[in-house]
Amino acid sequence: MIVSGRRLRMGLVGGGPGSFIGPVHRIAAELDREIELVAGAFSSDAGRSRDAGVLYRIDPSRAYSSLDAMLEQEAASIDGIDFVAVTTPNFHHLPAVRAALAAGVPVICDKPATATLAQAEELATLVRAARLPFALTYTYSGYPLVREARARIAGGAIGEVRKVVVEYPQGWLAGEAAGKQAEWRVDPVRAGAGGCIADIGVHAFHLAEFVTGLRVERLMADLGAVVPGRVLDDDCQLLLRFDNGARGALLASQISVGERNGLRLRVYGETGGFDWKQESPNILIQHHLNGRTELVQAGDPSLGADAVWSSRTPGGHPEGYLEAFANIYRDFARQLRGEPGSLAPGIEDGLRGMRLIETAVDASARNLGWVDFPGGQDN
Amino acid sequence: MIVSGRRLRMGLVGGGPGSFIGPVHRIAAELDREIELVAGAFSSDAGRSRDAGVLYRIDPSRAYSSLDAMLEQEAASIDGIDFVAVTTPNFHHLPAVRAALAAGVPVICDKPATATLAQAEELATLVRAARLPFALTYTYSGYPLVREARARIAGGAIGEVRKVVVEYPQGWLAGEAAGKQAEWRVDPVRAGAGGCIADIGVHAFHLAEFVTGLRVERLMADLGAVVPGRVLDDDCQLLLRFDNGARGALLASQISVGERNGLRLRVYGETGGFDWKQESPNILIQHHLNGRTELVQAGDPSLGADAVWSSRTPGGHPEGYLEAFANIYRDFARQLRGEPGSLAPGIEDGLRGMRLIETAVDASARNLGWVDFPGGQDN
Amino acid sequence: MIVSGRRLRMGLVGGGPGSFIGPVHRIAAELDREIELVAGAFSSDAGRSRDAGVLYRIDPSRAYSSLDAMLEQEAASIDGIDFVAVTTPNFHHLPAVRAALAAGVPVICDKPATATLAQAEELATLVRAARLPFALTYTYSGYPLVREARARIAGGAIGEVRKVVVEYPQGWLAGEAAGKQAEWRVDPVRAGAGGCIADIGVHAFHLAEFVTGLRVERLMADLGAVVPGRVLDDDCQLLLRFDNGARGALLASQISVGERNGLRLRVYGETGGFDWKQESPNILIQHHLNGRTELVQAGDPSLGADAVWSSRTPGGHPEGYLEAFANIYRDFARQLRGEPGSLAPGIEDGLRGMRLIETAVDASARNLGWVDFPGGQDN
Amino acid sequence: MIVSGRRLRMGLVGGGPGSFIGPVHRIAAELDREIELVAGAFSSDAGRSRDAGVLYRIDPSRAYSSLDAMLEQEAASIDGIDFVAVTTPNFHHLPAVRAALAAGVPVICDKPATATLAQAEELATLVRAARLPFALTYTYSGYPLVREARARIAGGAIGEVRKVVVEYPQGWLAGEAAGKQAEWRVDPVRAGAGGCIADIGVHAFHLAEFVTGLRVERLMADLGAVVPGRVLDDDCQLLLRFDNGARGALLASQISVGERNGLRLRVYGETGGFDWKQESPNILIQHHLNGRTELVQAGDPSLGADAVWSSRTPGGHPEGYLEAFANIYRDFARQLRGEPGSLAPGIEDGLRGMRLIETAVDASARNLGWVDFPGGQDN
Repeated sequence: MIVSGRRLRMGLVGGGPGSFIGPVHRIAAELDREIELVAGAFSSDAGRSRDAGVLYRIDPSRAYSSLDAMLEQEAASIDGIDFVAVTTPNFHHLPAVRAALAAGVPVICDKPATATLAQAEELATLVRAARLPFALTYTYSGYPLVREARARIAGGAIGEVRKVVVEYPQGWLAGEAAGKQAEWRVDPVRAGAGGCIADIGVHAFHLAEFVTGLRVERLMADLGAVVPGRVLDDDCQLLLRFDNGARGALLASQISVGERNGLRLRVYGETGGFDWKQESPNILIQHHLNGRTELVQAGDPSLGADAVWSSRTPGGHPEGYLEAFANIYRDFARQLRGEPGSLAPGIEDGLRGMRLIETAVDASARNLGWVDFPGGQDN
Repeated sequence: MIVSGRRLRMGLVGGGPGSFIGPVHRIAAELDREIELVAGAFSSDAGRSRDAGVLYRIDPSRAYSSLDAMLEQEAASIDGIDFVAVTTPNFHHLPAVRAALAAGVPVICDKPATATLAQAEELATLVRAARLPFALTYTYSGYPLVREARARIAGGAIGEVRKVVVEYPQGWLAGEAAGKQAEWRVDPVRAGAGGCIADIGVHAFHLAEFVTGLRVERLMADLGAVVPGRVLDDDCQLLLRFDNGARGALLASQISVGERNGLRLRVYGETGGFDWKQESPNILIQHHLNGRTELVQAGDPSLGADAVWSSRTPGGHPEGYLEAFANIYRDFARQLRGEPGSLAPGIEDGLRGMRLIETAVDASARNLGWVDFPGGQDN
Repeated sequence: MIVSGRRLRMGLVGGGPGSFIGPVHRIAAELDREIELVAGAFSSDAGRSRDAGVLYRIDPSRAYSSLDAMLEQEAASIDGIDFVAVTTPNFHHLPAVRAALAAGVPVICDKPATATLAQAEELATLVRAARLPFALTYTYSGYPLVREARARIAGGAIGEVRKVVVEYPQGWLAGEAAGKQAEWRVDPVRAGAGGCIADIGVHAFHLAEFVTGLRVERLMADLGAVVPGRVLDDDCQLLLRFDNGARGALLASQISVGERNGLRLRVYGETGGFDWKQESPNILIQHHLNGRTELVQAGDPSLGADAVWSSRTPGGHPEGYLEAFANIYRDFARQLRGEPGSLAPGIEDGLRGMRLIETAVDASARNLGWVDFPGGQDN
Repeated sequence: MIVSGRRLRMGLVGGGPGSFIGPVHRIAAELDREIELVAGAFSSDAGRSRDAGVLYRIDPSRAYSSLDAMLEQEAASIDGIDFVAVTTPNFHHLPAVRAALAAGVPVICDKPATATLAQAEELATLVRAARLPFALTYTYSGYPLVREARARIAGGAIGEVRKVVVEYPQGWLAGEAAGKQAEWRVDPVRAGAGGCIADIGVHAFHLAEFVTGLRVERLMADLGAVVPGRVLDDDCQLLLRFDNGARGALLASQISVGERNGLRLRVYGETGGFDWKQESPNILIQHHLNGRTELVQAGDPSLGADAVWSSRTPGGHPEGYLEAFANIYRDFARQLRGEPGSLAPGIEDGLRGMRLIETAVDASARNLGWVDFPGGQDN
């Protein structure tokens, strides 16, 4: 186990020039000074990896052109990396994690787990066998008020959950996709069988399960490729049934013109409800059966331990996406240091996400109506 | 045809003591001084009808204990009623409208059209044959900015519609229903086969079709009675497919604790989108594909003729539910006076609503997955 | 005293073709069927008054070309007017009210009371002597949640008031004023010495005193005519000191481009605070010293008697400006019927408003810094 | 000049255990990997400084118990600090900056510049003479949309500015102040002559001048100590006149119960207006004279270079206070590297802030009404 006094050393896999998520991982990892980026296999192109190393301001000798090289050379160093962060496109997750785990290196991996369910199942087997820390960056579960809603629901604040509405509208793929970000996400080979469902639907799915503590048991799905010429879905809508019988809806879209990143979760129970929006993440509305409505805000004295731990500034000083992301990394650091309390998503969450993608894609393609969601046994 | 100079005379059917919607019809009808309440068959109990007459401040001799009596005596009067407004529970709509039309009296009727689809079909036959003005108070289509969104979409502001999300959460039936309002709405005999779907789902459905100009062609439905002991659905969620291929979702609920009357419509097209919420009805968000977002507000100089006609005050002086309702009455008055331009919903809208209820209830009960929505031929 | 059973009969003074506020008074007066417009001296031009009578759909014989004619002929009628509503420009209020009171006719009058303080003092003397019902339509005090805030503060919900911020930004006079509405408001002869301060500043002032129950004792004022060529102020800002020592600020403007009718009141006390905005009038934020924030909404079960009495629809069915205005009329009707409980503003409120205008205009013109607000003795 | 390739090395002054702003400086400085915390004189108590060093995870040998020690030993190191960040209470700013500059070390300093105007003038003299990079962390000028508003106004988007409303309500000092944060802020010896005006009023003041490009020329001030027993002001309100004749109001308060950190700026010009709120910093409302209202959002394609440079994530991924703070540090890094384009506030902004404090405190204490703001000549 790693001693608690020093910063943990991260090696980044992917995140080369033009990457959106690579720099985000770097900022998130380092925000709380628990972790330090020291190495990277940023690109399989040696020149591009070297350029990235300069941008990230790391020691040039630690900008590698392959994960294998990084694993090998860092292992030989007295201050080598403590873990890797995998931020490559989905199809590359499995081989990257396999290599790292085989080298005895813990992994934090971007979502979804893999490109296909079969890969995810293989990944799960590897992770379970490796007994090394592993986390998946379902970022939105890192927001303080998301964690507060989760804690309050677990504490009985709204009674039994009856209804869940989770939505995730975006508009950036409404026109013809352009740029590197869009490119691989609409390509079945690199992204997998799901488009919108894999890119953002799984976020919404995880958020709903994370906050409610429930598990989806059945679903009806309608996925479509709206923009002409597109192969993967860019809009999806699902009706859900949870394991306690609660009814739910999941709407995700990347063709909703004008929407930025509109993830929103509403949960209604017997005696209350919660409403949270990612774009104004420091407000959580709590409804009470007696007709009272509370605006719970980040920094409020009524917040519980998880929300307090997940914040850095007093109320009114907005924290956002990077800080939420950083909370996942802080959780992962707790795992690395052998400390309890991590709320970071793990491989089982990853598996469920992959099952969601394959189940929804199949159910929609074959117009199946209600289908079972085969995953309860894992949890 | 009625001369344009004088106020039109209304006879109210229903709306006796304890009614919510009766006084609302009265205020809406009279708001613009086009119409005057002069008579009523407020209750089949003579005493209660008389009491209502006092509350409404009408001539005591014109508070009747039956519709038949009202129709007969008013017909004999030189200044008798010009039309009736039917505000009784759903199961009573058909006989009331039948009687009025038989007496040659135009009708404005609360929604949904009837308690059952069979009744609605009979009603439609009657209305078509009668060739008298007939309107249904799908209130929300009366809001100025709803009409503005409709006009802009018709004018091509967002290109072809691709995605529609309409939701209508309420929470007032989350506990055990109490009071007269709840009582008949959860009783299949008086309300019909649909609960939430019939009470508010049809509003959402009409709004979506009204604004987009599209017609639903297929749907998947999941309706449930969440509160123990309830027979009719109090929560419903539907996936929709429109006749141009657009995908849609309709979420309505009466067990969403803390929600008041949260009707909201979002429409996304090829080049833009609209977002409107009933609880802040004087704001309409318009998204543009180029990334610009406009806050269109009631009273804005950019508004079109329908929105301008539907407003009474300058921007910043909020108009609300009663004014929207009044717009349906002003439209109906235009019909009565033989003037063009009415946007008031009619019997075909009523039929579609009833088909929605029966189709959704059946599809859900039998777990059918996708079902055709049999109504295209009427429109 | 007027018997409670029948509708009260209103004669409108002013409100001819092109008037904004005349039709608003008509709708407000009639909304609850307590009152009926039956006559009007809409314009001193006989033809225009006749045209207005047609628009208002009243009996043509009761559209008069002078107030004197209306008072005389209505007095001779068995169902003549019960009161007059004065909606003419400010400089005409005094003679109109004088004539009505002399004829023994109660008056409801638009704000501000008059065009000058001297006129207001004369008016006050008349009203006090007449012992007839008299009300001033400071509309915004009619909103249910404004009344709720007032009741909660009076009940000690926030302890002693310490700070008041009231603001009223508009933008409609940011360009060169055009149209009838703007014309008289920027003319010192017809509007009086105050522009923005008289048109909207007094609304803000009344609202602050109405809700807090405090009285302004001292002020610093800075008024200006921003648009070139304008004589009267179109922007004003005041610092206030209330009689309990609380500090306050009043900002009103008619050159704040893009603002519609942004009246907003914030009150902070020892143990809580309130925040209310006219453009979303059905929400009242209540702050608590323990860090909790409540969204109080129209229709909530926690509301007190005044707010309940002032609403017509359940929560989530927005009521707005016309309904608030109607509440002033319902209050006035209570006065006419000899019933208690009216919250309608009266002549003392009118006097205070006029003193505000003259005090602020003078203090600003002479750069006086703090000046006493001479009016405490009236209250 | 420092070579551009490596990270700049920061020594923190203050920010020991219990400090709010110290860790914020650390996060902000390191967010973009331009800068690295390597040393600190966190506290004059050796033990506390050592503890802080552990918390910050720096080399224990670089946690000093005095600034002098840090300056001396770091100067002797080959990889010693490149600059210091001064985060001690106001009264300590002058000696700290003096020592650093004397040692040839650039300084970034928390606001306000000093505890007194006399100190600030001495500081200004030192800074001007030193010809070393110096910046003041008026944090809020770091927000991307603040910079966008500034750029648009400079570009003529709203014509000549006519009216500015800047407000900064907080509630955390509404009760009896508790804890270390409150303690020194309400103590004249450590904080200076101003309480609320010095703690947050200067932020509001700087924001208004930063965004509009105007300079305050005259003011009226009303400051008060509302909570019994308090010596320094905890609530202040000022009326402003800018050098182009524009009228302004500045309201700041720390006794506004329930307000967190409600900094808001509204600017109205001849042809448009802007509205920005710190607690939802990723939205900027732009009003146009033609009645159109735009919601400008972080990440929009219409944004200019300053806003783009100041953001790290795409639209819809909220950035907040820490990222805004980090932008000030990135600007400072540009100065250190000799690159152009910094928007970071400097000593002249600091001087103006101190003049504001002293002018307002004096004007209020002596009830002076309008007073000149003596600072135009510096800019």
